[in-house]
Amino acid sequence: MSILSGIQSPADLKRLGPDDLGSLAAEIRERIIAVTSRNGGHIGPNLGVVELTLGLHLVFDSPRDHFVWDVSHQGYVHKLLTGRQGPEFDLIRKSDGLSGFLMRSESEHDSYGAGHAGTALSAAIGMAAARDRSGGDNHVVAILGDAAFTCGITMEALNNLASTTQRLIIVLNDNEWSIARNVGALAKYFNEIITNPVYNRLDRDLKSVIGRMPGGRSVLEFGKRWKRETKDFFVGSSLFEAYDLRYIGPVDGHDLDAVVKHLEFAKESTQPILLHMLTKKGHGYPPALEQPERFHGLGPFNIRTGQSTPGKPGAPPNYQDAFGQALLRFARENRNIVGITAAMPPGTGLSYLREALPEQFFDVGIAEEHAVLFAAGMATCGYRPVVAIYSTFLQRAYDPIVHDICLQNLPVTFCMDRAGLSPNDGPTHHGLFDIAYLRTVPNTIVMQPKDEDELTDMLWTSLRTDAPTFIRYPRGSARGVACKETPVEIGIGKAEVIRPGDEVQLWALGPWVGEASAIAAGLAESHGIRAGVVNARFAKPLDLELLAAHAASARAIVTFEDHALMGGFGAALLEALNDLGESTSVLRIGYPDQFIHHGSGTADLRESAGLSPEAIRTRLHRFLAALGLPANAPANAPAHSANR
Amino acid sequence: MSILSGIQSPADLKRLGPDDLGSLAAEIRERIIAVTSRNGGHIGPNLGVVELTLGLHLVFDSPRDHFVWDVSHQGYVHKLLTGRQGPEFDLIRKSDGLSGFLMRSESEHDSYGAGHAGTALSAAIGMAAARDRSGGDNHVVAILGDAAFTCGITMEALNNLASTTQRLIIVLNDNEWSIARNVGALAKYFNEIITNPVYNRLDRDLKSVIGRMPGGRSVLEFGKRWKRETKDFFVGSSLFEAYDLRYIGPVDGHDLDAVVKHLEFAKESTQPILLHMLTKKGHGYPPALEQPERFHGLGPFNIRTGQSTPGKPGAPPNYQDAFGQALLRFARENRNIVGITAAMPPGTGLSYLREALPEQFFDVGIAEEHAVLFAAGMATCGYRPVVAIYSTFLQRAYDPIVHDICLQNLPVTFCMDRAGLSPNDGPTHHGLFDIAYLRTVPNTIVMQPKDEDELTDMLWTSLRTDAPTFIRYPRGSARGVACKETPVEIGIGKAEVIRPGDEVQLWALGPWVGEASAIAAGLAESHGIRAGVVNARFAKPLDLELLAAHAASARAIVTFEDHALMGGFGAALLEALNDLGESTSVLRIGYPDQFIHHGSGTADLRESAGLSPEAIRTRLHRFLAALGLPANAPANAPAHSANR
Repeated sequence: MSILSGIQSPADLKRLGPDDLGSLAAEIRERIIAVTSRNGGHIGPNLGVVELTLGLHLVFDSPRDHFVWDVSHQGYVHKLLTGRQGPEFDLIRKSDGLSGFLMRSESEHDSYGAGHAGTALSAAIGMAAARDRSGGDNHVVAILGDAAFTCGITMEALNNLASTTQRLIIVLNDNEWSIARNVGALAKYFNEIITNPVYNRLDRDLKSVIGRMPGGRSVLEFGKRWKRETKDFFVGSSLFEAYDLRYIGPVDGHDLDAVVKHLEFAKESTQPILLHMLTKKGHGYPPALEQPERFHGLGPFNIRTGQSTPGKPGAPPNYQDAFGQALLRFARENRNIVGITAAMPPGTGLSYLREALPEQFFDVGIAEEHAVLFAAGMATCGYRPVVAIYSTFLQRAYDPIVHDICLQNLPVTFCMDRAGLSPNDGPTHHGLFDIAYLRTVPNTIVMQPKDEDELTDMLWTSLRTDAPTFIRYPRGSARGVACKETPVEIGIGKAEVIRPGDEVQLWALGPWVGEASAIAAGLAESHGIRAGVVNARFAKPLDLELLAAHAASARAIVTFEDHALMGGFGAALLEALNDLGESTSVLRIGYPDQFIHHGSGTADLRESAGLSPEAIRTRLHRFLAALGLPANAPANAPAHSANR
Repeated sequence: MSILSGIQSPADLKRLGPDDLGSLAAEIRERIIAVTSRNGGHIGPNLGVVELTLGLHLVFDSPRDHFVWDVSHQGYVHKLLTGRQGPEFDLIRKSDGLSGFLMRSESEHDSYGAGHAGTALSAAIGMAAARDRSGGDNHVVAILGDAAFTCGITMEALNNLASTTQRLIIVLNDNEWSIARNVGALAKYFNEIITNPVYNRLDRDLKSVIGRMPGGRSVLEFGKRWKRETKDFFVGSSLFEAYDLRYIGPVDGHDLDAVVKHLEFAKESTQPILLHMLTKKGHGYPPALEQPERFHGLGPFNIRTGQSTPGKPGAPPNYQDAFGQALLRFARENRNIVGITAAMPPGTGLSYLREALPEQFFDVGIAEEHAVLFAAGMATCGYRPVVAIYSTFLQRAYDPIVHDICLQNLPVTFCMDRAGLSPNDGPTHHGLFDIAYLRTVPNTIVMQPKDEDELTDMLWTSLRTDAPTFIRYPRGSARGVACKETPVEIGIGKAEVIRPGDEVQLWALGPWVGEASAIAAGLAESHGIRAGVVNARFAKPLDLELLAAHAASARAIVTFEDHALMGGFGAALLEALNDLGESTSVLRIGYPDQFIHHGSGTADLRESAGLSPEAIRTRLHRFLAALGLPANAPANAPAHSANR
């Protein structure tokens, strides 16, 4: 019988002896490696926090004490220790399995959910303020990676910390990496702390003294004395002292004994305290240690070799590779083109540029707002910045997009990967709102290609357009079409007729162009309905000329989009028809007004959102039947319900 | 002849002697006081930077060298020195006058525009990176208030500064105030630097040595030596050293000689440098010095007394006062209610809460993202946070709204002042996009009251609703209605029929309810058209029951909103009608897809956006005529163009 299977709650953990804890750590690692090798996931970060998480649950009392994990992709160990080690863990990131992140709805032990970085400290300060005002005595612990400090929100929180509460523990889980290797002055600063012999000596002293003490009260007494005596040596920690924060560290985050003792010490602190833990991404699994960037988060792999499970032979390339390669091609020809990313070089495909033309590449860390403003600054000086940020993370930079890029009408290209679903990651990572939040802003051009060749054309076009352009495309596989030798400039706001037809017009955006074509063929074949297909290309500006022609000639228009219906592409088309004074019947296919959870794949999630091929066919036929289509069918289905 | 009138460009300034410069400073102050006393404006910040701005233009060479002013409400002096001292300055913030902010489209000397805080350093780093890559030698100077450091973007920029460029000058214009008095650890830290005798001694030494030097090269030589010799004394500056930034200061920002000499010194630095200037908001005008919060920005006032020009007798209260007083009332009854603002206690009306119940009030500085996440943290612990942030500034917190508040469905109330136009401020301050960016997000409830009594009811309602609620309302005067003793809970998604009618239904949001009522009365009176008026109350969820009834019974629906048409309230109504399968004719009144500039008032700006009462009447009559209304009129007007 395994030790892990006996841990149904953190209380069970507290009954284990030191040897059992060591075995448990090994067992947890084995389980995580096994599950992520099948499901994919954030293996590196989770292997790095095994001892830290054990220490937290040994020293504190969850859910009474609150742990707030930044990003929370490193919560697998926490899940295993809080009653979630059953079959739902084996299905993590899959349909019917656990989320790959923490979620308040999943467990009372998840005191806060996340998926984006930099939110933990602010939320923890809110919890501490609530605790202080209620006269509570529970603890609040924010666990931040070093990359959280590249994110401005963490710094806003730091500035407010000491004036808001005197009781809050920050664990700085320093693995020198966020997703890619960390950038900027603070990363260097943390490294200086680590390599400074003064610190290491103090830490040794602290360790040996703490090691001899019985606990509680005397830890506190010692703490006071120790602080008085050593404060002056902590020259390098004065960054934190500027924030009235007590600094302790660095601590070996894989020495469970040291982790526990330092957490006990922090627990007694009467001022906000930062405990600097050193961990290694992938600790305990050599392939992950050797390739920390790749093993930050990845798909299924072979446990023995660490090799990724090969894709199906002949599978199309990913959109991000197509984008990254096209950008590199264009950047070679025009040295004023620069690529900017926020800690996502491999995820966005900008790593091609990073490797080949590093002087035209900027990674600013998890700092989306700075990324966009930096691009704005470069654009005012004649540069052509291409900002590659996932659709969902670009929400961080909404104000700079409005206030700096669009108001000043600067020629910056935004390449929004993960537009649509990011199935295994779930609601924190889907990109389902960008059309709505972008198109309401004047001067925006919003496009989505039907395949990777058109993505290349759109990038080319945007680099020749003196306005803010936004190109959205999905995560993962493109269509497998050949990319032209020479890209073609696409007329702004010009849609493409894919298939002629005159009774019904299917206006589709992005990958839905393929599906709309199949639907149109089906309508023709089985019902004799003449359905045209339009690759809309632009969510803004719409092709009003083509739309007016279709409104005048067709019985109905159907829109397809990988986006929330509310405010999305179909909505834009309704507005345009209204502006044209047309009342053509419209059926909109897209995501309903609810957060879409995670799941094994796009098909699963579409099905649960009412967007399976069968469900769409049914809705479409009811919609058309209500309009008397096909012409020889009785028009008896209710149009209203067909349209919901 | 005044000295100022001889300054047509910065070149003219450089020809003046010391005495003339002193007289010029006095003249500039007089002009700013005179103009702001008539037009209102940011008087305090501008009086504080007279010598600093003179120094910048004396030492640097604009527009070749770039000044990037954070927020840029302190740009009046810069405008006066760069060819904009004519009548357009007297009309600053008015129709046909200058903008109250810097704008790239206004002058080649405005190298960057702004209106929101915290953007300058990032944009300046972008310019410096462009300069470095192009092999240029021009200077980039970012001028930041101390409050910019409460804003996370500035910290993201700092983290990237030294790894991006070695040549950038930051002027920290420290007046110990942003808009309200600054908050947080860094404000305290800056204050410690100022009061630390070590700094002041070093500064004196530096001053005396620099004072004896001829210039250029030797300043550089001296700088190197000085740096080597004094670096170790700069213990307290190590916050900046953590960012690889050289710190010099503090310098008296009203001593033009000192300002010039320190800027000359900074100009030669071969690493990024921060020059810490101490200035006083309102310097040279006693009333402004005495009341810095009030004189940060205000309406017209009496120059001699500093008293604000009294409003018209019997004028209604402002929405923010109605909100602030209602919140205070509710917070007294429920101690779990807390008010949170981002450096805007008076502007939002939260100052009532600050004065009366300081323990239920939080001002986090210019840190909108932290404000929202902090609210999320408190909400998870049973508190009822009310976040009061202007509509346009809430764009900063879009990601926390999506990822933290709405995804976790936390009961946080957002009170969005300045929804609609903020006429004198212009495009950086109008709140015209919030309905679109909020309603696409699941779980949001978005409302707008017709008057201050309904605002109170909506706040009351939101505090009893377990979901994220957003209440938007305009800047300035409410309607002057009495507020009920006991507020009433409004059904979520329930509209209010203001006036019955059956031929046309006017659905209006917020202040437009009043105007729609007048229009309906006019339609009845002059044309015998039976027009109903609906106070929509909710942009989301819409009152689908009432809408379905109207769609079934009325010939047409007209929507009115203080919002961009694209994605706004009228668009939501089109979507709802489409979902209901209805094809009722709809005319949407709202703002077109372009940025709305600044102007003297709402009427002016509405007129230039095609929304004057006459323009609306004309469009409405053409729209109705095309539908054959009134019934006895010929239906000959083209429907399509009426609807554009």
